[in-house]
Amino acid sequence: MKKSILKFARKPRIVSTYSVVGHLEKEGPLGECFDEYCKDDKFGKESWEKAESEMQRRALCGALKKSGFIDTELDILLAGDLLNQCIGSNYALSNFDTGFLGLYGACSTCSEGLLIGSCLYGGGVINSCAVVTSSHYCSSERQFRFPLEYGGQRAPTAQWTTTGAGAFILGDSGRVEICEALVGKVIDKGINDINNMGAAMAPAAINTLKRYFLESEKSVSDFDLIITGDLGFEGSEILKDLLLDEGIDIRKNHVDCGLMVFEREKQDVHAGGSGCGCSAIVMASNIIPNLEGKTIKDVLFLGTGALMSPMSLSQGGTIPAVAHLVRLKSVN
Amino acid sequence: MKKSILKFARKPRIVSTYSVVGHLEKEGPLGECFDEYCKDDKFGKESWEKAESEMQRRALCGALKKSGFIDTELDILLAGDLLNQCIGSNYALSNFDTGFLGLYGACSTCSEGLLIGSCLYGGGVINSCAVVTSSHYCSSERQFRFPLEYGGQRAPTAQWTTTGAGAFILGDSGRVEICEALVGKVIDKGINDINNMGAAMAPAAINTLKRYFLESEKSVSDFDLIITGDLGFEGSEILKDLLLDEGIDIRKNHVDCGLMVFEREKQDVHAGGSGCGCSAIVMASNIIPNLEGKTIKDVLFLGTGALMSPMSLSQGGTIPAVAHLVRLKSVN
Repeated sequence: MKKSILKFARKPRIVSTYSVVGHLEKEGPLGECFDEYCKDDKFGKESWEKAESEMQRRALCGALKKSGFIDTELDILLAGDLLNQCIGSNYALSNFDTGFLGLYGACSTCSEGLLIGSCLYGGGVINSCAVVTSSHYCSSERQFRFPLEYGGQRAPTAQWTTTGAGAFILGDSGRVEICEALVGKVIDKGINDINNMGAAMAPAAINTLKRYFLESEKSVSDFDLIITGDLGFEGSEILKDLLLDEGIDIRKNHVDCGLMVFEREKQDVHAGGSGCGCSAIVMASNIIPNLEGKTIKDVLFLGTGALMSPMSLSQGGTIPAVAHLVRLKSVN
Repeated sequence: MKKSILKFARKPRIVSTYSVVGHLEKEGPLGECFDEYCKDDKFGKESWEKAESEMQRRALCGALKKSGFIDTELDILLAGDLLNQCIGSNYALSNFDTGFLGLYGACSTCSEGLLIGSCLYGGGVINSCAVVTSSHYCSSERQFRFPLEYGGQRAPTAQWTTTGAGAFILGDSGRVEICEALVGKVIDKGINDINNMGAAMAPAAINTLKRYFLESEKSVSDFDLIITGDLGFEGSEILKDLLLDEGIDIRKNHVDCGLMVFEREKQDVHAGGSGCGCSAIVMASNIIPNLEGKTIKDVLFLGTGALMSPMSLSQGGTIPAVAHLVRLKSVN
């Protein structure tokens, strides 16, 4: 069998992380963990799109400051977001004097960035990089669904796009390493309900996780957490059910970034959080600090993305999805 | 000074290339070089977006067939396009049983894919990959400007989005190697004319080329060709003029993919070709075959991208741009 799990001659460490969020995220269960927030979600800017860019800029500035790097010392920036033409990243990163590679993987972009960054560092091509991703509830709603002013009713299976940006500096030092990764395949199971991304993404997460277990000969119990980001409530239930049918029981150690970031029923976010920023802020503010503190030691992070397009859906298309895996471990 | 040029412990070879184009490209100066074309630009599909996906699918199938690989033997697919949510790639590549990493770099995406693929191979993380990018005149016009039915008049400085997809297989064998690369920075010189992408992109190409020459201590005469893709007429003139002001004369060996793909005045394409497909089909059908045949031996390819967004421009924004460099050489 061909080996698909990517292994690294030298394993990148996570030097620092930084999270910037909106008010609803600040009011959620992880509120205390985030580095920075803005009460009106505008971050001093006059449009939601510019606010999103500003979040990315602040996230990268914050992560750089914590790491001790300055931008010109970094080898590469890897970034992406949900906005058309990835303008969140493009504008934000024109402020930094570092080469930039733009990514698009919908909500999987954070994992895609960590994966590519790890490969570049792991192969010795670079010595450091930053990964930055973001999403904003207000810019996403008007791009993918309706302008907020329309006041559309949300379906129970719909997820709530997180307002947040997370940044990660990869390099030589730090107490968490990325030791393996697995690139997701595009999986299209014919789901075409724009209000049920979880159902579209769950099969992609299943495909990646099963391939990882098969090739690594590891199993669920080898990991403290299996983190998906972000299937939400609906997708997480589908994931757990379908895996259980195949004899893989992840119920005890599965968490989903979309379910961690909000108190779902109390905050009225329906199926939970989503967006390029969701897994980024949860990883940056909670999972990685817990790995640093050794309350957890070995986790699989599956960033899931619904490669959804309003244009394609209007043409009767389906929602393909992808899930990239990175394995993170505590180190001394 | 920090080293920014990426070098590879082992240099990837271009195993095969394949180009799929529309009718206008087929009628252009490189018409005979393309592997496949479609008379009505629809490729048997009912929408322009689906036609674009079909081009990508065919391009990858063609490159795989020429290479002798099958999809499950490839380690990774790297792909992107100009469409919102990169649906050209997402739908096309759900047909292949290989991990997929989505990229967004506007018209620079072909160079971005070759660069990342080279880094992954060069660092020993993978042994093979495919890079695929596409653009379609009709899907781009309605997304970025106006639906064709509107019949809008084009500005003289506007470029014509190429209808085409190019695919490249990187691996161990082949007569062309990628030996170096340099990641572009996001350069924003305040250009905000949606009909003059060349002016927005030229400064990015200048930034990357000057950084390459400075660090490598090489000069224009060390290369048979300096290929930009795609600045068009306007951008190419700006590039040559501004470089000349700094004592760098590339006039004798500069070519631009946007100027190679069409006979500009005769085909009424104003400033020349553009789009993720433009440099991909020119590299796949002309530059790389010429390197294989040794009529040229050592070239710099600067893929340029205008990170332009109709949304941002409507908010008074500018057009940031990026240019990634890869150096290709003939080998035995």
